[in-house]
Amino acid sequence: MAETKTRKRRGGGRAGAAARRGSAAIDQMPWDPPVNIDRPTEPLDQAGIEAIHEGAMRILEEIGIEFYNEEAIGILREAGCTIDGDNVRMGRDFVMEMIAKAPSRFSITPRNPDRKIEIGGKNILFGNVSSPPNYWDMEIGKKVPGNREMCRNLLKLTQYFNCIHFAGGYPVEPVDIHASVRHLDVLYDKLTLTDKAMHAYSLGKERVEDVMEMVRIAGGLSHEEFEAAPRMYTNINSTSPLKHDHPMIDGCLRLARRGQAIVVTPFTLAGAMAPVTMAGAVAQSLAEALCAIALFQYVRPGIPCVIGTFTSNVDMKSGAPAFGTPEYMRSTQMTGQMARFYGLPMRSSGVCAANVPDGQSVWETSNSLWAAVQSGTNMVYHAAGWLEGGLIASPEKFIMDCEILQQIQRYMNPELTATGPDEIALDAIRAVGNDGHFFGIQHTQDRYTTAFYQPFLSDWKNYEGWEVAGGIWTAERAHHMFKEIISSFEAPPIDESIREELAAFVERRKAEGGAPTDF
Amino acid sequence: MAETKTRKRRGGGRAGAAARRGSAAIDQMPWDPPVNIDRPTEPLDQAGIEAIHEGAMRILEEIGIEFYNEEAIGILREAGCTIDGDNVRMGRDFVMEMIAKAPSRFSITPRNPDRKIEIGGKNILFGNVSSPPNYWDMEIGKKVPGNREMCRNLLKLTQYFNCIHFAGGYPVEPVDIHASVRHLDVLYDKLTLTDKAMHAYSLGKERVEDVMEMVRIAGGLSHEEFEAAPRMYTNINSTSPLKHDHPMIDGCLRLARRGQAIVVTPFTLAGAMAPVTMAGAVAQSLAEALCAIALFQYVRPGIPCVIGTFTSNVDMKSGAPAFGTPEYMRSTQMTGQMARFYGLPMRSSGVCAANVPDGQSVWETSNSLWAAVQSGTNMVYHAAGWLEGGLIASPEKFIMDCEILQQIQRYMNPELTATGPDEIALDAIRAVGNDGHFFGIQHTQDRYTTAFYQPFLSDWKNYEGWEVAGGIWTAERAHHMFKEIISSFEAPPIDESIREELAAFVERRKAEGGAPTDF
Repeated sequence: MAETKTRKRRGGGRAGAAARRGSAAIDQMPWDPPVNIDRPTEPLDQAGIEAIHEGAMRILEEIGIEFYNEEAIGILREAGCTIDGDNVRMGRDFVMEMIAKAPSRFSITPRNPDRKIEIGGKNILFGNVSSPPNYWDMEIGKKVPGNREMCRNLLKLTQYFNCIHFAGGYPVEPVDIHASVRHLDVLYDKLTLTDKAMHAYSLGKERVEDVMEMVRIAGGLSHEEFEAAPRMYTNINSTSPLKHDHPMIDGCLRLARRGQAIVVTPFTLAGAMAPVTMAGAVAQSLAEALCAIALFQYVRPGIPCVIGTFTSNVDMKSGAPAFGTPEYMRSTQMTGQMARFYGLPMRSSGVCAANVPDGQSVWETSNSLWAAVQSGTNMVYHAAGWLEGGLIASPEKFIMDCEILQQIQRYMNPELTATGPDEIALDAIRAVGNDGHFFGIQHTQDRYTTAFYQPFLSDWKNYEGWEVAGGIWTAERAHHMFKEIISSFEAPPIDESIREELAAFVERRKAEGGAPTDF
Repeated sequence: MAETKTRKRRGGGRAGAAARRGSAAIDQMPWDPPVNIDRPTEPLDQAGIEAIHEGAMRILEEIGIEFYNEEAIGILREAGCTIDGDNVRMGRDFVMEMIAKAPSRFSITPRNPDRKIEIGGKNILFGNVSSPPNYWDMEIGKKVPGNREMCRNLLKLTQYFNCIHFAGGYPVEPVDIHASVRHLDVLYDKLTLTDKAMHAYSLGKERVEDVMEMVRIAGGLSHEEFEAAPRMYTNINSTSPLKHDHPMIDGCLRLARRGQAIVVTPFTLAGAMAPVTMAGAVAQSLAEALCAIALFQYVRPGIPCVIGTFTSNVDMKSGAPAFGTPEYMRSTQMTGQMARFYGLPMRSSGVCAANVPDGQSVWETSNSLWAAVQSGTNMVYHAAGWLEGGLIASPEKFIMDCEILQQIQRYMNPELTATGPDEIALDAIRAVGNDGHFFGIQHTQDRYTTAFYQPFLSDWKNYEGWEVAGGIWTAERAHHMFKEIISSFEAPPIDESIREELAAFVERRKAEGGAPTDF
């Protein structure tokens, strides 16, 4: 492994590392999106796969999905589906023919082409927390509504960490910006503070069109260049059970027609908007996603589509959503098997129900991230920073999650399990014999800087050393790191004329009133 | 699933549940050791398996292992091994012939036969933290030497939690008891406070013989009955690199001759007492374990033996051991493949380097516990309560880990991924249609009490509810739970005459001076 693949601190602590690396506050792994080399965990046998497929198809054929979108209804009628008011029933032949047109893998190229991501196959990519209305950090010490500064800080973390491969939705809703122009300010922030793959909310034509235009401008692209290959994506939820709302379908159709990528993620909580049995909740989720993907493929054959899952369970005592549970893990794994059955890339998430970045938040998030690995997920949404079932974004949690994500990246390095003669190291074992140690030998010297994962947040000092250093628990260490990263953050380069063009676009669209807020 | 399989709180909180269930402070899952239904994660291909096997065999054939035990040297000379002082080299034919005599699965029956455990196959069992010299809890707030009361309290947790299936070594060293009689007092505590499978330290013949005798007495067994099937086990470490110390081998030989089970767990830290490359560290660990198992099989063919792994890496900056790392996960998975290759049950651990029960402790422990699952581990040592690389035992960490262990147990329930018509639930989906919800329907009503995992420590309230309840982070919630469990603990029943016989044995052996302390 090259020296650059896993950079190491060489003493001097974080301050020393920062000095060596300019603006870098911590010494992290380089940009290197991982390839998932594990065989997926597959709880379903062939009969199980067929049973869930049969369930999904019968939902589409016999029960139907409501599309609250006249354009979609018209298209699906033309395509031969059975329309009854808003209700659309579609045969499995049509569904399977349409989804077969979707690519099993594709790429998204953001304004910095070095940040291009490949979606599908064995690739696994991580994105930041998206869309919490609230924010929590250790300095504030309580849950508060998000604002633009918080949003900008979380975008800086999104850019800063190389284990975050794409930008999701707003990492926190900046509710201090009026909803009519919020997308303009946040996209300006996103496009200037980060250079990673961009997301647009499907919340009305103005927002979608504005975001596409801003991504085009930021990339220095002509309209033709923008439409030639995916430069961004949207992510929509269905309104379970069995409904698609107008703005989500509208936004997707707009992106599809301009060649941009679409993620369809039903939010089927078992016991609430889906059956209490996980296989039923998965079948319903698949039906809701597949019918939308079929529509988009009919409109624009070959448009990149990702099938998402957000199947979890509720707490049957309170109705509150539960996340990172055993049921969540198994439904994610089952959906992974079905995504491969349908030949579609897959999205899942990093999630928890915990309210603060404590132990619970870590076991719930770890469970969900390992489920992403086990399921063969390609895009992991909300992979860093999520609390309270997605109602809170937290910078401490963001940084803690990045430590876990880096470990998953490292875990996927095939060199860890290499078994050539140099790795079996019989000569080294012979040289040390029964009475030495391996610290000083050449075999160790040749490899020690890159042999092992080097954490940036885990503290491996013994108790006494940890105590002398302040006896600081994980979340507080993450808080200090957050302050350090923000204070030394340097935005990625952007051509000044492009930045001015973006600013002018934002100013013009604000002057025009932005987007309607009657959604 | 029967009502008893996953008990639910039915409101009233923990106090209410405790009132309903007598001494039970919390509502946990019942005793039900899980079966690991996942296909193992196998990073090695056939060539990789053969390369590691070849490495292990060449270590045994060409380099040899030192046995600081004259009896073992004599036995291995008789068996035809090549002896040079303490160094023993053994041919692969001998090794493979001997380990083929070891059973691939066996059982241990403690004094309460309902707590019988099956080791091997797809069984996965969890044991308490073992052997830390120090203790930490939130009330004390610092690392302190262990004492008998702390040890007794951790034994109470060992007994209390149904997800702890066997008792390991002392959950903390009670250094307030003189080393000559410590084993007598602690075994008395263990055998009266718990009824789970017992462990003996291999630390001199008196201790081993005393523990076997106490386990025999506690079980109300004749000597013949005790020796007829495993009633207990020992666990030894080699002294890496490539050495076995006298008392460990001596203890194992004593247990082997009386039909008790043996776990051999080399402690090979890559970069320190093993090669810096994980495959080399695994090969060395296997060699160290296999030669001892070969000895025990030669002495007593068919004696139950478990091959353990403790292969992790050191922090190359400080030399401190690191745990729950990506390298640890992969070496555990590789060892799992090799254990199946050799047809031996396997042991791994729940481990972390963190000093307090914070976020880091959870991601490191989660990583190691999921590695145990992925590797097909049969016995998970230190599964609850371990901190600071095994130097600290903590009751809060114990309880937090039990929440994770319960989730793994639940995850292994095949009903989560059942795909029969009742689970696909097409009729329920049809009944709810596009505009209802699933809370109230019969399909949900019939299943809601057992449909989902119910945590005892995770707090699924929303932020506001959590805040009203005190805004308590995970570790502190675990601390309150610890106090509650200890204050309401009821020891498992034991026949009074047996208890008196145990007490008399302890008194007599103390009068005789206990065990020598010159080890």
